[in-house]
Amino acid sequence: MRTVRLTLAYDGTDFVGWQRQENGLSIQQLVEEALEPIEQGPVAVVAAGRTDAGVHALGQVASFRLASAIALDALVRALNARLPADVRVLAAAEAPADFHARIAARAKTYRYRIWNAPVVSPFERRYVWHVPHPLDVDAMAAAARALEGRHDFAAFQATGSPVASTTRTLFSVSVQTDPSSTGPSPAGVNSRPTRPSSAGVNSRPTHPSSSRPLIEIDLRGDGFLRHMVRNIVGTLVEVGQGRRTPESLAATLASRDRARAGPTAPAAGLVLVGVEYP
Amino acid sequence: MRTVRLTLAYDGTDFVGWQRQENGLSIQQLVEEALEPIEQGPVAVVAAGRTDAGVHALGQVASFRLASAIALDALVRALNARLPADVRVLAAAEAPADFHARIAARAKTYRYRIWNAPVVSPFERRYVWHVPHPLDVDAMAAAARALEGRHDFAAFQATGSPVASTTRTLFSVSVQTDPSSTGPSPAGVNSRPTRPSSAGVNSRPTHPSSSRPLIEIDLRGDGFLRHMVRNIVGTLVEVGQGRRTPESLAATLASRDRARAGPTAPAAGLVLVGVEYP
Repeated sequence: MRTVRLTLAYDGTDFVGWQRQENGLSIQQLVEEALEPIEQGPVAVVAAGRTDAGVHALGQVASFRLASAIALDALVRALNARLPADVRVLAAAEAPADFHARIAARAKTYRYRIWNAPVVSPFERRYVWHVPHPLDVDAMAAAARALEGRHDFAAFQATGSPVASTTRTLFSVSVQTDPSSTGPSPAGVNSRPTRPSSAGVNSRPTHPSSSRPLIEIDLRGDGFLRHMVRNIVGTLVEVGQGRRTPESLAATLASRDRARAGPTAPAAGLVLVGVEYP
Repeated sequence: MRTVRLTLAYDGTDFVGWQRQENGLSIQQLVEEALEPIEQGPVAVVAAGRTDAGVHALGQVASFRLASAIALDALVRALNARLPADVRVLAAAEAPADFHARIAARAKTYRYRIWNAPVVSPFERRYVWHVPHPLDVDAMAAAARALEGRHDFAAFQATGSPVASTTRTLFSVSVQTDPSSTGPSPAGVNSRPTRPSSAGVNSRPTHPSSSRPLIEIDLRGDGFLRHMVRNIVGTLVEVGQGRRTPESLAATLASRDRARAGPTAPAAGLVLVGVEYP
């Protein structure tokens, strides 16, 4: 038996999350079902992060044991041929026999995206939380710094999620406005301006500029409790609205009381960016 | 009666195009139906470009006459409250009484996006043409230059589209690889790398880099024939595949023969970026 490691990207909008559920389609079920005809038998797949319903991934990592001798590039092609277009295998690699995508993970990075303007771009609507009224990004960034380091994050854990320890380390938390507005380089269907042309009429196109009303919150940590990122973001948005001070975050954290933290931000804005291994 | 000018963005995936059709839902129908309760009567809306089924817009411009005295900001809010999330009104402005969004347009800019890699990002799948094998972008750019200027574009017009003249001016045609890979500034759900962190473990996240395998073709012109952009792009892709030379484009153009040009590129990759007025 070999052990294989996959890197996956998915648009989580239409799924119940990574993990198999009775009530709908999961990424895990799709990947396991795509592997079954290759292996000619059942394959159990584990992932680094159990992304919730509606949460996306750019770099989820999954692992499984396989008897089949299929080449890695053929495996990627065969899986993508069977998976729906909103789930893609980006890469496959051989892994040490005892590799386990969740247990071996040393750090994960999540990104939360907030669209902070009255009107949401139709191209971003599945991948953002729409917060129409202006947020104080500097206050949010100051509040975020209080969360960096090793802490008991019980206040930001979904209620009814028993775990052995609620202590985790956040290596970094950053809050940024859309960096595409500060530089010349564009990306995404709605971010690049047309360059001024010397030919033809002189007026400029009446289209949106390259600056987008996007706030991105990146969190890199050694582990995350259930709903931890979304509960942190819901709390930071209350800071951005002036309903909490940046300084209050330390007391919220110390309280270990979920009722003291803010609401759970919607799943659509969350994406698992990547997973790190030793 | 006042004349109002709207700027609209839409994800065209689920529509039959701008113009009303018997066989499905159009953007025009949605906008007209959203205006009717405001006007308390029917409103006829015209747009600068009749985008085809599946074609997107970042900056479509539409105009109509209105008896209602509703304020412009209330109009934007009322329309967006009635329209589905894949169609958004970005702005509304008063226009001269005789303003007509199509007739008054002096230039339009279209962008065509090609995903040139074996695997398409799930987040881009609705907004690109997937061409898995590598394209020669320099050859495509050289070929594109032959199309700039005032020409008879009959070779690139959909067959069976009678128009008075097939002569149009392309002010500029550019072919570029994804500019997000050249600068520090990111945009889009899958383009920004996590910054290296000094805290925590040293290995880098196993996630896709900020460079995306995207080719963007921008065309700015005084008018476009039916399927003209998609037929040009289908021909340029054959140049990129080595099936035509860049030099052959001049003869294709001069032939005025649709059969000499390449296939029609899929609608999903096309977006109307903006419209210019005097």
